Amino acid sequence: MDGRISESAMKEKTKCQPLSPRNVRDLVDSVDAFLFDCDGVIWKGDTLIDGVPETLETLRSMGKKLVFVTNNSTKSRSQYAKKFHSLGISVTVDEIFSSSFAAAMYLKVNDFPKDKKVYVVGEEGILEELELAGFTGLGGPEDGKKTVLLRPNSLFEHDKSVGAVVVGLDQYINFYKLQYGTLCIRENPGCLFIATNRDAVGHLTDLQEWPGAGCMVAAMCGSTQKEPIVVGKPSTFMMDFLLKTFNIATSRMCMVGDRLDTDILFGQNAGCRTLLVLSGVTNLSTLEDSSNHIQPEYYTSKVSDIPKLLR
Amino acid sequence: MDGRISESAMKEKTKCQPLSPRNVRDLVDSVDAFLFDCDGVIWKGDTLIDGVPETLETLRSMGKKLVFVTNNSTKSRSQYAKKFHSLGISVTVDEIFSSSFAAAMYLKVNDFPKDKKVYVVGEEGILEELELAGFTGLGGPEDGKKTVLLRPNSLFEHDKSVGAVVVGLDQYINFYKLQYGTLCIRENPGCLFIATNRDAVGHLTDLQEWPGAGCMVAAMCGSTQKEPIVVGKPSTFMMDFLLKTFNIATSRMCMVGDRLDTDILFGQNAGCRTLLVLSGVTNLSTLEDSSNHIQPEYYTSKVSDIPKLLR
Repeated sequence: MDGRISESAMKEKTKCQPLSPRNVRDLVDSVDAFLFDCDGVIWKGDTLIDGVPETLETLRSMGKKLVFVTNNSTKSRSQYAKKFHSLGISVTVDEIFSSSFAAAMYLKVNDFPKDKKVYVVGEEGILEELELAGFTGLGGPEDGKKTVLLRPNSLFEHDKSVGAVVVGLDQYINFYKLQYGTLCIRENPGCLFIATNRDAVGHLTDLQEWPGAGCMVAAMCGSTQKEPIVVGKPSTFMMDFLLKTFNIATSRMCMVGDRLDTDILFGQNAGCRTLLVLSGVTNLSTLEDSSNHIQPEYYTSKVSDIPKLLR
Repeated sequence: MDGRISESAMKEKTKCQPLSPRNVRDLVDSVDAFLFDCDGVIWKGDTLIDGVPETLETLRSMGKKLVFVTNNSTKSRSQYAKKFHSLGISVTVDEIFSSSFAAAMYLKVNDFPKDKKVYVVGEEGILEELELAGFTGLGGPEDGKKTVLLRPNSLFEHDKSVGAVVVGLDQYINFYKLQYGTLCIRENPGCLFIATNRDAVGHLTDLQEWPGAGCMVAAMCGSTQKEPIVVGKPSTFMMDFLLKTFNIATSRMCMVGDRLDTDILFGQNAGCRTLLVLSGVTNLSTLEDSSNHIQPEYYTSKVSDIPKLLR
């Protein structure tokens, strides 16, 4: 009987708690950095979520380090900084970690040769980050205009010096790019296959979800029969990089996100505290559903609950 | 010691044999129908494989039923018949089983309602077979020209009466079609997700391989997080249909193909005799590699070995 009680007590302990005036102070005091997912946490499409600027201001005034982590690879860090500014939030490029940047950093920390090229099935953000890191990118939006001619005896040529293919969200996906990336991965010896992330869908517009990078990555897996190296959430590559850059223990970081299978899992994989906000794709019934096995430490409706509960 | 001998003898028995003057007569006499894969068996791209017309003529003169089974969904059965004729081979539409036809037949045998529509991520062949079977198809090549406008507050509308999405090889794949198909599968209650086949690559031109239907199907799996119903090889749907149509026991059919994981597996799944030809994507070293676990009953260099060995 005692055994049963302690088992149920343990279960209670691992189940996530709503953020409350009682536990918010403990959470804030015990961390040095807050890692925020962007879409569904800071904004939804092009609309800022209620109370975000005041929340960030409060946390900054308490000396907390803020980091904005996004799996959306379509923009570079400086393009994201512009988006933040246009919404009235001031951030520095160093505070932003996009999966486009992560892809370039993965190549950098793994000493990818500068004389090799990188083929991009994705958008401008990846090409911009590759260039900033000193790499030569090919493909991207430009190849979105190209078509394939399936004539007898015509040969589709690809650059043999491509040593990595980076695949991310690509609204200009086409057969030309799929063939180009597939040939590089299948025929160029040692060619890396890197995925910015594998999100199935994302809020590319305010009103609905669209196929995410997971769609383009799966297509490339389908034709190459290979699995990619993932650099965005929930892979811990970005977190390892953050650790080295900021020198803050992951146990003193709190990951704030709206997705269980990327944000919360990412935080948990890395040993961070975790806070789920219900302002994005996850609602309370999904969180509490018996089929969900990912439990954040805390949950709340939106980030502005933090300063509200602290008062 | 006896146990070991009989075990090795059994292994010897299940290992595939080269087609020879000694065993070809037994194979031909024991079957009533030959099922031929097309690409890599009958032709390669637009070039007929050496000795095919004489082989088919010999088998027909022996009273064998011939069936041409192809996973390539880009053409309809009548478009395939035209291709055969242009290469100097005379076949009837009834002898051709393409995965485009299989998709339409799957809907027919499952009483798909005629007032529901079918969205096609694929080419003309699927739309033509759907129309011939009395269904209303949407999408296909026409939607290959459409683009997506990701503007704030713009809504991508889809037809709520779509009850099935058919995905096949699509050289005009784009973000518009991926979003359309994804919305139908995710939001239309009970919407079917049908794949013509999942071949990773195929010889769309003579000189090289290109991403196959497996690439487009994987993309749709990536965004919907659902698995499709596969109607082409190696699914036995086509075989069940063939059985009903021709009334020949599968044990009296021989599947002739160049791919282990589609053709030979398809034949074995259905209980057919199997013959691998080395005129397509599989070579002898792949067949004999220890990592290969699919063993056809016989193998030979090309179909014209059959009449040659019979003489």
